[in-house]
Amino acid sequence: MPVGTLASVKGVPQEVLEELGVQILLGNTYHLYLRPGIEQVKKLGGLHRFMSWRRAILTDSGGFQVFSLNDLRKVTEEGVTFRSHLDGSSHFFSPENAMRAQIGLGADIIMAFDECTEYPADRERVRASMELTLRWAARSKSYFEDHKNDVPWHDHVGPDAPVREGERQLAGGAAHEAAELGSAGRTRASAPTYSTQALFGIVQGGMDLALRRESAERTIEIGFPGYAIGGLSVGEPRAVTREVVEATIEHLPADKPRYLMGVGTPEEIVEYANLGIDMTDCVLPTRAARHGLLFTSEGRVSIKQAQYAGDEGPLDPACRCRVCSRYSRAYLRHLYASNEVLAQVLNTVHNLSFYLDTMRAVRHSISLGKGPGFLSEVWSRAKP
Amino acid sequence: MPVGTLASVKGVPQEVLEELGVQILLGNTYHLYLRPGIEQVKKLGGLHRFMSWRRAILTDSGGFQVFSLNDLRKVTEEGVTFRSHLDGSSHFFSPENAMRAQIGLGADIIMAFDECTEYPADRERVRASMELTLRWAARSKSYFEDHKNDVPWHDHVGPDAPVREGERQLAGGAAHEAAELGSAGRTRASAPTYSTQALFGIVQGGMDLALRRESAERTIEIGFPGYAIGGLSVGEPRAVTREVVEATIEHLPADKPRYLMGVGTPEEIVEYANLGIDMTDCVLPTRAARHGLLFTSEGRVSIKQAQYAGDEGPLDPACRCRVCSRYSRAYLRHLYASNEVLAQVLNTVHNLSFYLDTMRAVRHSISLGKGPGFLSEVWSRAKP
Repeated sequence: MPVGTLASVKGVPQEVLEELGVQILLGNTYHLYLRPGIEQVKKLGGLHRFMSWRRAILTDSGGFQVFSLNDLRKVTEEGVTFRSHLDGSSHFFSPENAMRAQIGLGADIIMAFDECTEYPADRERVRASMELTLRWAARSKSYFEDHKNDVPWHDHVGPDAPVREGERQLAGGAAHEAAELGSAGRTRASAPTYSTQALFGIVQGGMDLALRRESAERTIEIGFPGYAIGGLSVGEPRAVTREVVEATIEHLPADKPRYLMGVGTPEEIVEYANLGIDMTDCVLPTRAARHGLLFTSEGRVSIKQAQYAGDEGPLDPACRCRVCSRYSRAYLRHLYASNEVLAQVLNTVHNLSFYLDTMRAVRHSISLGKGPGFLSEVWSRAKP
Repeated sequence: MPVGTLASVKGVPQEVLEELGVQILLGNTYHLYLRPGIEQVKKLGGLHRFMSWRRAILTDSGGFQVFSLNDLRKVTEEGVTFRSHLDGSSHFFSPENAMRAQIGLGADIIMAFDECTEYPADRERVRASMELTLRWAARSKSYFEDHKNDVPWHDHVGPDAPVREGERQLAGGAAHEAAELGSAGRTRASAPTYSTQALFGIVQGGMDLALRRESAERTIEIGFPGYAIGGLSVGEPRAVTREVVEATIEHLPADKPRYLMGVGTPEEIVEYANLGIDMTDCVLPTRAARHGLLFTSEGRVSIKQAQYAGDEGPLDPACRCRVCSRYSRAYLRHLYASNEVLAQVLNTVHNLSFYLDTMRAVRHSISLGKGPGFLSEVWSRAKP
């Protein structure tokens, strides 16, 4: 999932995201809560309609963002008081109002409000944090069950409305595409059976494998249509990340989406897909693009380097995106060195294309029954 | 002509410019001379190939840009010594090396090196400046005639090369489009008769109508395939601009392109087209877009205003550009208020679309034999 923090994947129009084959975007509840505000988005028919995006959206709960504020927050049993990074104003997120916010935004998939445990942390701290996340998960689900029909598009089943096919669409983009294609002729008579969002639970437990197992089992007891692994990529070594993912995923049901939050490089997403992860999100392809770091089939390219100033070749000879089809490394290097806005735009389009191609290759490999294992070799060769 | 200072119309990929119907872009020699450098562009086959733009390009001479540096320049008979706005390094532009630079860039239309007279200036100063521009025009032409075959694409008549149809293509985009469409099957046997750039002269003379007439007549004596009116939009009242344009254009041949440099608003370009101006360039549509000022058929929209936060309507209901077809004023306002890069991209696409639609309406009106006069009424009603 490309990250569209403020209802925009930075620099890339929605029609280009569609052309790239993006099936689902991530939006950040914390940022959208501050700007333009939940009530505003809700009044405008929800996030899909607001940003003109008919495909799927997932919103995070705001928990991770709020926990990133460090000194600007205070956690209690009830929730988290925090200060806006924009103007210092004071706000409060609880499981209930994080759900209210995400219902107001109206994404297809929303996330339980959790505490992202800091790293490193001792065992008692990790257990206490995990227990808090479990209580918040139950409160998130309870609030959601009572209010799931408040979603802005709930009663809006016209041809302009984003189409909901419920959980079935969420596990596979193809089904969603089909639903989207069918929307023009949709009538009330054929309205979807499901018309609520899907609330996913989040497994915590720090780097402690026993606590991860306990968190997984007790989150499953609460019961969600999909499960995320949170609290990783918070500074731990990559070998530890992998170990925790392996130890957690075996306790998550294989017939429900398994979502690894905030990961990672192209090699990592292939590696985790190989372990059974169905979904990931990461700012890396878009943020790296803005800093001139580009992912290619020949390895990383830091486009700012002088060696590219006279390079007439495409950024990635194996890539068929609109950037590699048209522009040279020399031109991309010039745009970056000259601080041209188009550098951000083109670099982001290419990196997203590379990530989406990677996931298409993974899906193709799975569909052939080979498993994505062989891709790991491809990517390990591609490492700089 | 949209302005693509550094080989990019800020934020807009070339394929979108093509979709908008842009027939010709302006590049700034001064900026390209500093970054990426003339030799670099020349080695890469010229500006068209470097930026992957097969349609027409005009480069200015660098004169206006250098004169904008104020304290950083020194003018002599020989040329102008100036300091880079980037690193303070010292450089020298003369008619000869401004031609050398523009031949190296390889635009379809290049401009004589002139002195843009400051405003206000007394009559003696204006005359002296005009005389200098005339001597520089003769030197520009002389250097160009001796070196016009040094253009990077001169001997390159493969299917990848931008096609040159010489002066015939320059006066009309349709002819150029036809030339472009015909390029795939082109062979050496059918290589164009003309394969040089077109060097335009520039009329100066400040706000003095007699000097403008003299400058026009003596520039025509030197002889160019097109003539520009320079030295306007330098701080003088709009009524004076109009008076000077009217007094100058009557002395320019109607069968050659007449180019008014650095003008203006949509109303102004219609007004000047009505007087006989064939070409204009201005940073206004692109720069205003980046500051949230949008041109619409209903007048100016300052998209940052809070009144648009809940406005679900399109930016301009009469516009069919990809922005107005898809996004709401509320979304555009949010992007701008949140400082999202996409705001620059979408706002620029719309403003360019509005300008190009305006010029299409002007051409249509001319083709109907009505003259563009009635459009002035349309735009005067549209003024805020």
